[in-house]
Amino acid sequence: MTKRIGVIGGGQLARMMLAPAIHLGLEVRVLAEAEGSSAALGATMVGDYNQVEVVREFAKSVDVITFDHEHVPLAVLEALEAEGVSVQPPSKALAFAQNKLHMRRRLTELGLPMPAWAEIQTAEALDAFISANDGVAILKTPIGGYDGKGVRVVRSAADAADWLSADGLAKVGGSLLAEEKVDFVRELAQLSARTPSGEFRAWPLVQTVQQDGVCAEVLAPAPDASAELLERTAQIARGVADGLGVTGVLAVEMFEARDGRIIINELAMRPHNSGHFSIEGSVTSQFEQHLRAVSDLPLGSTTPRAAHSVMINLLGVDDENDFVRNYATAMSAYPNAKLHVYGKSARKGRKMGHVTVVSDSAELALGDARAAAEILRRGN
Amino acid sequence: MTKRIGVIGGGQLARMMLAPAIHLGLEVRVLAEAEGSSAALGATMVGDYNQVEVVREFAKSVDVITFDHEHVPLAVLEALEAEGVSVQPPSKALAFAQNKLHMRRRLTELGLPMPAWAEIQTAEALDAFISANDGVAILKTPIGGYDGKGVRVVRSAADAADWLSADGLAKVGGSLLAEEKVDFVRELAQLSARTPSGEFRAWPLVQTVQQDGVCAEVLAPAPDASAELLERTAQIARGVADGLGVTGVLAVEMFEARDGRIIINELAMRPHNSGHFSIEGSVTSQFEQHLRAVSDLPLGSTTPRAAHSVMINLLGVDDENDFVRNYATAMSAYPNAKLHVYGKSARKGRKMGHVTVVSDSAELALGDARAAAEILRRGN
Repeated sequence: MTKRIGVIGGGQLARMMLAPAIHLGLEVRVLAEAEGSSAALGATMVGDYNQVEVVREFAKSVDVITFDHEHVPLAVLEALEAEGVSVQPPSKALAFAQNKLHMRRRLTELGLPMPAWAEIQTAEALDAFISANDGVAILKTPIGGYDGKGVRVVRSAADAADWLSADGLAKVGGSLLAEEKVDFVRELAQLSARTPSGEFRAWPLVQTVQQDGVCAEVLAPAPDASAELLERTAQIARGVADGLGVTGVLAVEMFEARDGRIIINELAMRPHNSGHFSIEGSVTSQFEQHLRAVSDLPLGSTTPRAAHSVMINLLGVDDENDFVRNYATAMSAYPNAKLHVYGKSARKGRKMGHVTVVSDSAELALGDARAAAEILRRGN
Repeated sequence: MTKRIGVIGGGQLARMMLAPAIHLGLEVRVLAEAEGSSAALGATMVGDYNQVEVVREFAKSVDVITFDHEHVPLAVLEALEAEGVSVQPPSKALAFAQNKLHMRRRLTELGLPMPAWAEIQTAEALDAFISANDGVAILKTPIGGYDGKGVRVVRSAADAADWLSADGLAKVGGSLLAEEKVDFVRELAQLSARTPSGEFRAWPLVQTVQQDGVCAEVLAPAPDASAELLERTAQIARGVADGLGVTGVLAVEMFEARDGRIIINELAMRPHNSGHFSIEGSVTSQFEQHLRAVSDLPLGSTTPRAAHSVMINLLGVDDENDFVRNYATAMSAYPNAKLHVYGKSARKGRKMGHVTVVSDSAELALGDARAAAEILRRGN
């Protein structure tokens, strides 16, 4: 059976996969980009994942390949798959995570709930889309965007002249993706996992709060979510996972529109920031579940451990504060808060850690998590 | 502040300290006895902890020294302490964990509840103790015993002629420890932690079930424990921790005697088998708490995450079954069971892993944990 799980990428997601591997007696081996990565403890190799020889060498040391991020070139993965390497999720699924236009097209074919969208290659086409959508659109580069990068709100093609230039278009594969600017009341995320054998489990729906395009807070479960909504979003995730052939953890980010629609925004085919609450908040964390899923082991229970979990991200405040230095104050004030720091050097805006509080009271969980995070940021 | 925690010993306790270190952004570095230890992932050095030069070299690479076991010679630790190294728990506390006679003497001075006991150097003294205690005694070697080793039930000095010979006595420091064979209704364990600054927190009392001198099952909290009993055992643990100057996690193993007495049996000054339930069953696990305590950070909440936790040990059944090979069957049948395997090669009787189930129902937790463990042992 699969005992050695190879993770490409040495970020905090790979780091957090190490903990359940230790408990399960499985081995996570990491191909890191550089020395001193967040997942350095598990790094058995340092190299460039863009080079097929590097990834091939790494693959020889493990039973399955999975990911900390979605940036490995498809050609590299396809070459390995052709050689018999187990890649989970497989390249045919990752193709949709790497290209938002392909994703929109395929999910539309599958009948899943999309915003209005169009493939854009000219200023005229963009202006026409804007006109048809109340004078505004979200313009995205189909490839390479994350955490608010590669996304722009446009009210005229002039707002995207650089992207629409011949050079600009060439950089992103020849097309842009225009989407309806959804008038949403909140953002949701549906976390799930699927095995190569087709077993599927979803966690309860969560609400995410974004600041400047980056996840700031996650409320699990999503407040005031009806049974019908929970069932609907779990079915959407299942439709995506089955339809695209996703294995491992899948996060489906969604809008709850003012008109009641639930609309798929983004996909992540890996453990995701919206699922960090599950480390303490769920019988099975997303990191353990990902290890099980990519190993084609049966999935663990996603039952909550308490009524409410709140996760607050710790973004770097400056080049000095590593958050650990404020542990004494934060731990003393909030012995119930679970503090997570990813071993990264301090840099303003960098995702460096998170705080989770699990409680029977949603208010207490949110208040304590925010307060503990604030102490870690400010030191008092 | 303390960020690099040095653990002497590469067993499963060191291994399980790695997981909270990953989450907290602290670094656990392990001095292992040999390559391929259970805690190999964290091993930064391999060497003999009996040699002061080896431990001194290791100490230079960390901010504090702590332990996976209690076998490091006191002289080694005293030498390092004299050089300014922070050793937690300190040698003056470990002296009592390493010598059961010293422990009995000191705890008696502290007024803590002891069985009848006596220091034994002759057959006559042993026979006199046996006569005074209903014709039976538990005879222990003061040093070197664990998991049922170094312990014998004796009904006459003739049962311990080998230990009482000049050679036998010389091996154990010149004396044996005779104890009353307590007529107990059950065994209990009180887990707690204390920091160098004196902060103390206890987990709820647990019941342990031993088979052949080895822990087999732990029920948390101890069934039918009155508030008075919970308070009494927590106060006993506090008395031991404060009285002996213990830092880090302390497990106090106790008998509940048929006559109602609570009697201290053994001490462990480190995370302990009776506390493995806390990984899932408590807001703060014993492994996270140990890292906090030896770093003199404020202690985390020991509130249970659910009403009941049950832990079942996985002892090796033969030289083949590593338990991981039966994961598919066990995980499929018990998606709520948390499976722990320590990365050791299979050997009959060896502590190789454990299973924990957390539930609102004590019966469900016990039934599921036993059944999942049985599948891992038998494969079906």
